[in-house]
Amino acid sequence: MTDRDPTLTFAPAGRGGRTGGVSLVGAGPGDPELLTLRGYRRLRSAHVVLHDRLVAAEIVALAPASAQRVYVGKQRDRHPVAQARINELLIDYARRGLRVVRLKGGDPFIFGRGGEELEELMAAGVPFEVVPGVTAASGCAAYAGIPLTHRDHAQSCVFVTGHRKADGALALDYFDQLARPQQTVVFYMGLAGIEHLVSGLLEHGAPAERPAAVVQQGTTAAQRVVAGRLDALPGLVREAGLRAPTLVVVGEVVRLREHLAWFDPTAGDAAAAGWSTVQG
Amino acid sequence: MTDRDPTLTFAPAGRGGRTGGVSLVGAGPGDPELLTLRGYRRLRSAHVVLHDRLVAAEIVALAPASAQRVYVGKQRDRHPVAQARINELLIDYARRGLRVVRLKGGDPFIFGRGGEELEELMAAGVPFEVVPGVTAASGCAAYAGIPLTHRDHAQSCVFVTGHRKADGALALDYFDQLARPQQTVVFYMGLAGIEHLVSGLLEHGAPAERPAAVVQQGTTAAQRVVAGRLDALPGLVREAGLRAPTLVVVGEVVRLREHLAWFDPTAGDAAAAGWSTVQG
Repeated sequence: MTDRDPTLTFAPAGRGGRTGGVSLVGAGPGDPELLTLRGYRRLRSAHVVLHDRLVAAEIVALAPASAQRVYVGKQRDRHPVAQARINELLIDYARRGLRVVRLKGGDPFIFGRGGEELEELMAAGVPFEVVPGVTAASGCAAYAGIPLTHRDHAQSCVFVTGHRKADGALALDYFDQLARPQQTVVFYMGLAGIEHLVSGLLEHGAPAERPAAVVQQGTTAAQRVVAGRLDALPGLVREAGLRAPTLVVVGEVVRLREHLAWFDPTAGDAAAAGWSTVQG
Repeated sequence: MTDRDPTLTFAPAGRGGRTGGVSLVGAGPGDPELLTLRGYRRLRSAHVVLHDRLVAAEIVALAPASAQRVYVGKQRDRHPVAQARINELLIDYARRGLRVVRLKGGDPFIFGRGGEELEELMAAGVPFEVVPGVTAASGCAAYAGIPLTHRDHAQSCVFVTGHRKADGALALDYFDQLARPQQTVVFYMGLAGIEHLVSGLLEHGAPAERPAAVVQQGTTAAQRVVAGRLDALPGLVREAGLRAPTLVVVGEVVRLREHLAWFDPTAGDAAAAGWSTVQG
């Protein structure tokens, strides 16, 4: 496989002394077939792959057998230490002249902390590039049959994350904004804060009957979707026993799912289907 | 090429009388290598491709030589007629037992009106699936070196479009929301409304010195980026002579571009680089 990409010059394998580089690649939302062609090509020519918890094993497996795979999945509340170590590893591998793929779930510039890692690479003088990916909101919405925008129902969409404070409350200070109509709000966050999320929206004027959904392991064979009224969402999630990773979607567009849901995870492993046909 | 995907059963070519289907594929933001592996596979086995104005010629060319290519690019102010005709074509081709790829720029569920087309297919009983794509905001931000979220600068991002009213003003009634700090706002819209956009934000409390950027033809060899203070943006755009398609990004994260811009469109046609290596 040749690599004529002019935007990032990696040193050829096995020729020490040259500067390597880091390709920050978004792996997409789960289904390995939602990786981009460039992400695929970068993985196929990688010397080292540093990957997170949410990246599918099938994607990590695309790297050559000879490539080193480093799991850098972070544990909750241990971000600061782990992140410093990841930065150190990226810089160290690149300085050894290696082609390093930093593989993140979704899109690296949407809640991927990609910018923070790049700032470190830049400070260290390590060449880098960014390969955007299909963000979790796009993937989960597509596979759940929920258009994120729609002329009649939502002229904008908002992607939000929420860090939980010591008392368990969400560190979100703009619920009034998120509660407004004619938009779709997607929360990139675990289920632990869902009661706070729902009560925050209701207290700031969102109608109790606004449609909402939780998508678990979206785009994969394990996808599960729970949808209903906003005020009923925490109960529905508990009853269904949903587990992380999840994405919460709030807005009138969720109603369209009744007609537009097309993906049947029980029909087989869509992620693996036909996979071999694009690897050649 | 075999097609074992369980989620959508297309009739084999040339065996009339069976029901075909429509794969609604997001082509990504411009660079053909940002197409997904599944999008690639769907195109390679398409009988018919209906494509929009913003889809790269290299992507349309991926369909087999025998495939019918139908350009359905819409002209401004002629949406209603054209859309009805597109729906008609999609249904007609699928009913003839053909594998139809409906190819849209970016992600079909983010300002792609994908949901509206699917509602028509559903009503007509035509099978469909959705292949999400890298949305323009992700692609342009990645190639412009602008992380859309960042722990210090933006805990949410908002994607907005604006239809212009008869008097030229933007039909946006929530400028107060868009003017708030600690978020990134991406406008999917042409340059015609940029004065209204900027004055709307400034009148609703956005500081004049908030960083903002306009990305023209992002992710392609023709990419151009203009960045500066929000209040100076219309002037900068005029001076630079930017043309559609463009994307406007407003927020503190734009400042990070000073250090994180890595993509050099003048270095060659990144879109074509190494492309042949993934087609085999």
